[in-house]
Amino acid sequence: MLTITKTVCFSCSHRLYVKDWDDQKNFEVFGQCSRLHGHNYVLKVSLKGNPDPVTGMIINLTDLNKIIKHEIIKWIDHKNISEQVDVFQTKTPTVENLCIAFWDRLQKALPPNCLYKIALNETENNMAEYTGP
Amino acid sequence: MLTITKTVCFSCSHRLYVKDWDDQKNFEVFGQCSRLHGHNYVLKVSLKGNPDPVTGMIINLTDLNKIIKHEIIKWIDHKNISEQVDVFQTKTPTVENLCIAFWDRLQKALPPNCLYKIALNETENNMAEYTGP
Amino acid sequence: MLTITKTVCFSCSHRLYVKDWDDQKNFEVFGQCSRLHGHNYVLKVSLKGNPDPVTGMIINLTDLNKIIKHEIIKWIDHKNISEQVDVFQTKTPTVENLCIAFWDRLQKALPPNCLYKIALNETENNMAEYTGP
Amino acid sequence: MLTITKTVCFSCSHRLYVKDWDDQKNFEVFGQCSRLHGHNYVLKVSLKGNPDPVTGMIINLTDLNKIIKHEIIKWIDHKNISEQVDVFQTKTPTVENLCIAFWDRLQKALPPNCLYKIALNETENNMAEYTGP
Amino acid sequence: MLTITKTVCFSCSHRLYVKDWDDQKNFEVFGQCSRLHGHNYVLKVSLKGNPDPVTGMIINLTDLNKIIKHEIIKWIDHKNISEQVDVFQTKTPTVENLCIAFWDRLQKALPPNCLYKIALNETENNMAEYTGP
Amino acid sequence: MLTITKTVCFSCSHRLYVKDWDDQKNFEVFGQCSRLHGHNYVLKVSLKGNPDPVTGMIINLTDLNKIIKHEIIKWIDHKNISEQVDVFQTKTPTVENLCIAFWDRLQKALPPNCLYKIALNETENNMAEYTGP
Repeated sequence: MLTITKTVCFSCSHRLYVKDWDDQKNFEVFGQCSRLHGHNYVLKVSLKGNPDPVTGMIINLTDLNKIIKHEIIKWIDHKNISEQVDVFQTKTPTVENLCIAFWDRLQKALPPNCLYKIALNETENNMAEYTGP
Repeated sequence: MLTITKTVCFSCSHRLYVKDWDDQKNFEVFGQCSRLHGHNYVLKVSLKGNPDPVTGMIINLTDLNKIIKHEIIKWIDHKNISEQVDVFQTKTPTVENLCIAFWDRLQKALPPNCLYKIALNETENNMAEYTGP
Repeated sequence: MLTITKTVCFSCSHRLYVKDWDDQKNFEVFGQCSRLHGHNYVLKVSLKGNPDPVTGMIINLTDLNKIIKHEIIKWIDHKNISEQVDVFQTKTPTVENLCIAFWDRLQKALPPNCLYKIALNETENNMAEYTGP
Repeated sequence: MLTITKTVCFSCSHRLYVKDWDDQKNFEVFGQCSRLHGHNYVLKVSLKGNPDPVTGMIINLTDLNKIIKHEIIKWIDHKNISEQVDVFQTKTPTVENLCIAFWDRLQKALPPNCLYKIALNETENNMAEYTGP
Repeated sequence: MLTITKTVCFSCSHRLYVKDWDDQKNFEVFGQCSRLHGHNYVLKVSLKGNPDPVTGMIINLTDLNKIIKHEIIKWIDHKNISEQVDVFQTKTPTVENLCIAFWDRLQKALPPNCLYKIALNETENNMAEYTGP
Repeated sequence: MLTITKTVCFSCSHRLYVKDWDDQKNFEVFGQCSRLHGHNYVLKVSLKGNPDPVTGMIINLTDLNKIIKHEIIKWIDHKNISEQVDVFQTKTPTVENLCIAFWDRLQKALPPNCLYKIALNETENNMAEYTGP
């Protein structure tokens, strides 16, 4: 199998909390992440495929960049994702749920059957990866 | 000259804006940084001195860690610094002003004449350094 | 599939040698690694699972941290693993064998069927990965 | 499964273009990559296997290094791969095609059934991975 | 003193050679760097100054970005600098000479007395820094 | 001023302790660093000078590499520096004292008045820098 991976960065604020819980319960479960804070996220989007026999590319990275910018960066960068991004009104914006949300958006915008993996670093030490449902 | 440098990380949210300006003016000056977002900051604290002839250390890093944790991490980590940190009620929390604020706090907590430099990365691509007034 | 990965660092000394071999034979096989030296290891522990529908987490990272600290860091950090860590009395502490040993310890301490991968960097240029027997 | 991964770096120049196309068409498809430029490539070669019961190694890294140096570094480092490397006379030297070419060369030089993955970064943000045909 | 540093990346090809020397002499002095190859350069531009009392910025990073893009990136990125960039027709494009050339161009484009340092990595292991004549 | 910096890595074991102190006192002062452990050190050697008008180099990096390999790597790499390296029989091998020892050795081996700075990372988070007595 052959994959191509594009890395992009963006900066958001969020907090991890469950709306039905009070502050104390949220702090017990999420610790200091229950307070509003933020991260420089590093996102890796991997596509699988065969290289085009003429160009040698699985996908033109210029096209992939445009799709990632439109679907992810424009949607989420420099925002408070706990308040301003629709999906995270009902789902906690953990690094796991961010991966799944990114997959869902990119899956629809990319050619069929090429999205292979979403990898997302919240910090250098916390990362999630998702290869689809 | 000999220096020792300790690196620590923390994650905050902030926005860059001037209270007296409206949203449009703030966006013109600060761009998307005028919206609430966040970063993984990387802070390097450098001290100068001579190594102790017995221990070979300028300062015991355990002690330096305690001071950085007490003065910086406890003060600022996992907070919305534009709203919750006193200094930044009146000063914009740019990476430059954060450096100066960190210098001021550490200067008072450290032995005299040893603080040499504060270096702060807001992202991998934006950094400020301060060596005192 | 969805995974969450936690990265931790520790610093050990070790040497690669076979007790039944003399120094010359050990040097022929292991080169300068047959001499006592050390590394800053970077360990990535990956768990698979579904995000909890309420918290959005595969596992609470605070819990995962505690398990890694108890099972790995406390067991191995700032030690001479060739001499002071039981497993490596009979097995050479190569990066491959370290991965397997970490898997065995974490497997027992974590909930069943969630450990997915151990990745261990001995240096920036040498790494092993293990996904279980 | 257990794998061992060795990382090496090399520096080449290349351009992405199709010989039958004129400059304008090449620029439309490959953008500024259609002009002669260069990269510091980072190559990760992963081998799978069981650790030798005596040495604890899948492969002696000294041997793996020699093979990578002979097959890859000597072949490609500090060259203009679009002009001076045979394979890329007929194939565009995209990061995808480089991965496949590296696989083909290493596959023949390594013991059978041990090569597991080729990962190649062209920049920090563009990477391809190949696990064989 | 307070400085702000912006980091940018670009990818060029070059060769180190003296036109009056033959290939053998160039290889003796510059080794394999006498052959056409390339790098991902990492450039850090540092400016000194006082933070604006209202905005908290030494310089608006949007403005600094524009200047760096116009003076450096547009001038040099994705080019063969040994052939296509005027300055390096008469000066060898070593990392040292690149620093000096970048200083000269940025110095003229920036407000007076604010440029503080140019730092340029040719690889992770080779870097030059220049603070002016 | 213009400087050129070469980065090299090496791996050693050491322990921080004072021979005249008992284990408990050493643990009180040096913590777990009083136990035998190890690091991947990252050393940056900076030289100042003017670029040669013909070659454009402050120093030929091939020559600098040879000197660093002979004076530092051969002297210290893959050793237990607390036991096997003469200087550290009487001086604690802290990152500060290592910097000073490296300066002293390189100073003698390099042309006069060109050594500018020694920077040494013991881990990603602990570093010392020395610019001479």
